[in-house]
Amino acid sequence: MKVALVMGSESDFPVVERGLKILKEFGVETMVRVISAHRTPDQAVAFGKKAADEGIGIIIAAAGKAAHLGGVLAAVTVVPVIGLPIKSSTLDGLDSLLSTVQMPKGIPVATVAIDGAENAALLAIEILALQDDQLKAKLIEYRAAMARAVEESNVRLQKHL
Amino acid sequence: MKVALVMGSESDFPVVERGLKILKEFGVETMVRVISAHRTPDQAVAFGKKAADEGIGIIIAAAGKAAHLGGVLAAVTVVPVIGLPIKSSTLDGLDSLLSTVQMPKGIPVATVAIDGAENAALLAIEILALQDDQLKAKLIEYRAAMARAVEESNVRLQKHL
Amino acid sequence: MKVALVMGSESDFPVVERGLKILKEFGVETMVRVISAHRTPDQAVAFGKKAADEGIGIIIAAAGKAAHLGGVLAAVTVVPVIGLPIKSSTLDGLDSLLSTVQMPKGIPVATVAIDGAENAALLAIEILALQDDQLKAKLIEYRAAMARAVEESNVRLQKHL
Amino acid sequence: MKVALVMGSESDFPVVERGLKILKEFGVETMVRVISAHRTPDQAVAFGKKAADEGIGIIIAAAGKAAHLGGVLAAVTVVPVIGLPIKSSTLDGLDSLLSTVQMPKGIPVATVAIDGAENAALLAIEILALQDDQLKAKLIEYRAAMARAVEESNVRLQKHL
Amino acid sequence: MKVALVMGSESDFPVVERGLKILKEFGVETMVRVISAHRTPDQAVAFGKKAADEGIGIIIAAAGKAAHLGGVLAAVTVVPVIGLPIKSSTLDGLDSLLSTVQMPKGIPVATVAIDGAENAALLAIEILALQDDQLKAKLIEYRAAMARAVEESNVRLQKHL
Amino acid sequence: MKVALVMGSESDFPVVERGLKILKEFGVETMVRVISAHRTPDQAVAFGKKAADEGIGIIIAAAGKAAHLGGVLAAVTVVPVIGLPIKSSTLDGLDSLLSTVQMPKGIPVATVAIDGAENAALLAIEILALQDDQLKAKLIEYRAAMARAVEESNVRLQKHL
Amino acid sequence: MKVALVMGSESDFPVVERGLKILKEFGVETMVRVISAHRTPDQAVAFGKKAADEGIGIIIAAAGKAAHLGGVLAAVTVVPVIGLPIKSSTLDGLDSLLSTVQMPKGIPVATVAIDGAENAALLAIEILALQDDQLKAKLIEYRAAMARAVEESNVRLQKHL
Amino acid sequence: MKVALVMGSESDFPVVERGLKILKEFGVETMVRVISAHRTPDQAVAFGKKAADEGIGIIIAAAGKAAHLGGVLAAVTVVPVIGLPIKSSTLDGLDSLLSTVQMPKGIPVATVAIDGAENAALLAIEILALQDDQLKAKLIEYRAAMARAVEESNVRLQKHL
Repeated sequence: MKVALVMGSESDFPVVERGLKILKEFGVETMVRVISAHRTPDQAVAFGKKAADEGIGIIIAAAGKAAHLGGVLAAVTVVPVIGLPIKSSTLDGLDSLLSTVQMPKGIPVATVAIDGAENAALLAIEILALQDDQLKAKLIEYRAAMARAVEESNVRLQKHL
Repeated sequence: MKVALVMGSESDFPVVERGLKILKEFGVETMVRVISAHRTPDQAVAFGKKAADEGIGIIIAAAGKAAHLGGVLAAVTVVPVIGLPIKSSTLDGLDSLLSTVQMPKGIPVATVAIDGAENAALLAIEILALQDDQLKAKLIEYRAAMARAVEESNVRLQKHL
Repeated sequence: MKVALVMGSESDFPVVERGLKILKEFGVETMVRVISAHRTPDQAVAFGKKAADEGIGIIIAAAGKAAHLGGVLAAVTVVPVIGLPIKSSTLDGLDSLLSTVQMPKGIPVATVAIDGAENAALLAIEILALQDDQLKAKLIEYRAAMARAVEESNVRLQKHL
Repeated sequence: MKVALVMGSESDFPVVERGLKILKEFGVETMVRVISAHRTPDQAVAFGKKAADEGIGIIIAAAGKAAHLGGVLAAVTVVPVIGLPIKSSTLDGLDSLLSTVQMPKGIPVATVAIDGAENAALLAIEILALQDDQLKAKLIEYRAAMARAVEESNVRLQKHL
Repeated sequence: MKVALVMGSESDFPVVERGLKILKEFGVETMVRVISAHRTPDQAVAFGKKAADEGIGIIIAAAGKAAHLGGVLAAVTVVPVIGLPIKSSTLDGLDSLLSTVQMPKGIPVATVAIDGAENAALLAIEILALQDDQLKAKLIEYRAAMARAVEESNVRLQKHL
Repeated sequence: MKVALVMGSESDFPVVERGLKILKEFGVETMVRVISAHRTPDQAVAFGKKAADEGIGIIIAAAGKAAHLGGVLAAVTVVPVIGLPIKSSTLDGLDSLLSTVQMPKGIPVATVAIDGAENAALLAIEILALQDDQLKAKLIEYRAAMARAVEESNVRLQKHL
Repeated sequence: MKVALVMGSESDFPVVERGLKILKEFGVETMVRVISAHRTPDQAVAFGKKAADEGIGIIIAAAGKAAHLGGVLAAVTVVPVIGLPIKSSTLDGLDSLLSTVQMPKGIPVATVAIDGAENAALLAIEILALQDDQLKAKLIEYRAAMARAVEESNVRLQKHL
Repeated sequence: MKVALVMGSESDFPVVERGLKILKEFGVETMVRVISAHRTPDQAVAFGKKAADEGIGIIIAAAGKAAHLGGVLAAVTVVPVIGLPIKSSTLDGLDSLLSTVQMPKGIPVATVAIDGAENAALLAIEILALQDDQLKAKLIEYRAAMARAVEESNVRLQKHL
């Protein structure tokens, strides 16, 4: 199963790319698209509707401001949609966050932190790992590496003190 | 030209109805629909796409929480869409407001106050009145009546003091 | 019908200008004024009162902080007023947004996103297009161009990956 | 000098009345008016413009939601305007507060707490007391009475423990 | 694979139960536990660590205020954790939401709306449906039923008008 | 009567200075002090208690974060206290604003906008002008000059278009 | 060492009492006072200054709105002050919280959750327990009892399912 | 008794260091650790559990975003935990603050201002000073020095005027 990274605007890519990098490190097949819920609504609906058939297992939808992309895609597919709220030039991301996470009853969007592209990717990997033991092993190793990195920063800090 | 009042959930009707009443008082032709951007996405897109052809001049879109309805409709029509954010059980309407008003560049939604159904109706009437002098005259009289009502409340209050 | 772009302070012009540019691209007649609801209240009221008679069909009112300009103008005209909240140096635009959108019952201000000058212009054009088929055609073409731009960014992005 | 208590809507009176009561207790001459910045803009401007000539020394302006009343009055008089933000049914008074207090440079509105009618009255009295020693003496006694009330609540509480 | 519904306090159950009901309707095996990240930290860690081995495929973690439960569980398992922020008596759920969704880089929590138990359940089902075609079919039917319910409310509303 | 400008920290002076400049332009006698409600509580109380006797007619209290200075001074004097909330490095001034304006019943602080030093000064001048016709005349001229400045910016802008 | 529970208003007692009850259960000596930073400033300063000499080891300061009590007391004593923000009728406690916790550099107030009287008491006990092994043992047992209560609620819930 | 300064990420050190410096000036024994509640949960729990036995009297826990570190440590020790919310790149520290301070009933975290490392240190010193008269004397001198610094800034400012 592929993970699709969809973003509302090309300007979101620098954030999205941080998640893409992690997915690639884990060897997950990805596809990347700019699709705007508002400027290309037909493409958004079409993309969502055929997602499952095209082998997409998870959609990561990144959008800012009144961020409708996650909800619009989630409405037309039963593939899990991970919402990645993007901080824009006003309101510090609060608008993106609430527009993404506060989905009304019936259609969920699995929301991660504002600009939290890495966690969107890791959440996708956790979901894929439910049926992929190799991925699960990599995830466990990734966690261990994070813990080691904390330890190393600890060592570095002690020297500095 | 008709004004369509569209709401994301039947539970929004008590708020929407206050706007409907005003539109009827002004003799504006209306239609009312429950259409959910999330639970009935195809109907939402279809409704928006044929709005102009069906004689709809303005759409009032009422929705709560991550309120995508206004944006979804606005994306598929060039008919003006008025967004009416509905207060729900958490966050006191802030989520609905931001999800409606903070539309990214390209697709506007003309947003009124949270639960401000009367103003959504009056805004629709102002727009229609641009090409309907009779409506414009009614609007001016409505304004005058509001001013008189303020004066009457003043008189009432002075007696009370 | 003209679109008037009114702003509370000359410092708002860099934002307003982005909307002005779009209106000009669409061939809409515009006028631009600095009018402060607070520092030039008489001019504000006078401007609003004679707007309709001077051929103004829509007023875009841009203001920051306790942004009263939209409401003050809307109170003295039945011409539709589009409120454009401007982000200032504190509170990230939340004050401007709430001061503009939360209009009490009776006098609507059609509010767009904080600093959303392009959408204010496009909303004005949508309203004018209700009675101007040429404008409507341009709007449809503008939408198509936006969709193509998204597609192009998509192509650009795929090459980059 | 009189203190004028002006409110945007008759429904604000129960809050305003708490301030009125204090002003009366202090023997301050008052007048009370319902004047809406939006529904009766001409009256608002007229009221503000002649306030000084009619012996009004201070205006207390109570309004909710996008509360423009204080700013509109302050713009047309140099009489000090005290803004009293009224909590309405959404956003818990934050909109009223920001619309009142965040006045742009040039025209101040002396803002008190949301629904803080007593403090609006006491602030007016403090200002009047600057040139009225009798009022000043009453204010000092009022403060002493408040302190005694705290002490009494203390005694009451100790018995309860 | 089971879905575990874990809540920080027994008082969260009335919300959680709405999600439990949906999971049961879909025939998903569930388990329900009260586990507090703060009052029973050892149980929380133990629960998270053995979750995968006990056949838990997804954890729904419901908590209010400084809602750490989702993060604490997610830190000790690679099973996907869905965070369900619970509204408490102050701040209208904003604290729960931010404490749940704003997870730092490395450990995601898939967050749904405040008190959005139904969506937490449906998200879990979407994830399980990735490897269960029967569940996927039920989900598609559930969506269709929701759409029909919207249509029915539409019919009801039309009669009412 | 003097106007005292008191600030909680020397670092607030760049903001306060903008108000000081206006007071000097109006020929108002001023005094400036750094007094911290928290680091120099005795000085704060002493300053407040003797303010009236030292000919201080109005106190402008500038402070950031949990801004208690205005309230602490207001509690020990019946001289009007104008609160000037200072934006600090976090929360964009919201903490200063709420700590200043939301005074409990009994002790008002006349609050102006975040970093609104000019308006604090102008409010002080409005209060002094109640008993000083020369000051009142200057204030009216100041308002006229502001209106002219708006007009000039208008002329400038028209040339630019 | 005693724990003093100080509140800005008698109306805060129902919240404060929940903390008092816990302190008594732990056998901690307490005293309770209503002292307003604003209405009884001299008493507040006097109370703070003599706190240490009167055997007070910790002060719990409960206040709402622009909650200055904690800061005012902390400024005049080196005894640790625990701030307990009280929710009032507007803004859902956000004003109290920010006024209490955002103390400027130099004078800390140890802040607990809005209306979190139990935690204020438990924090006081934790501090006292640093030099009182019996109290520490009771605290450990209290924690164990809380854990057991969670377990019991678990059992209860399982039966209910 | 030692004070442990624990931070969720090495990137928090520049803030934490400001508190560390004060603790060292006061001659308090310190230890510094990077421990992530999420990336190194076992170390977090282990650290908290043995804190008391290793002579740690107070833990300062610094973390950003969904800041769980304070709560996670507080849950496994009865040593007082001071929460230091760190501002991150979105939401201006509001997420960190609420995640730290809004602890549910039973487990307190003594929270200081966002990025308020100095106050976290001073609070720790106040607690230690309850049983260390020398430290108490230093604290009183530190307060006096702060007051003198305010006075000096006053002198400096007067010269500048």
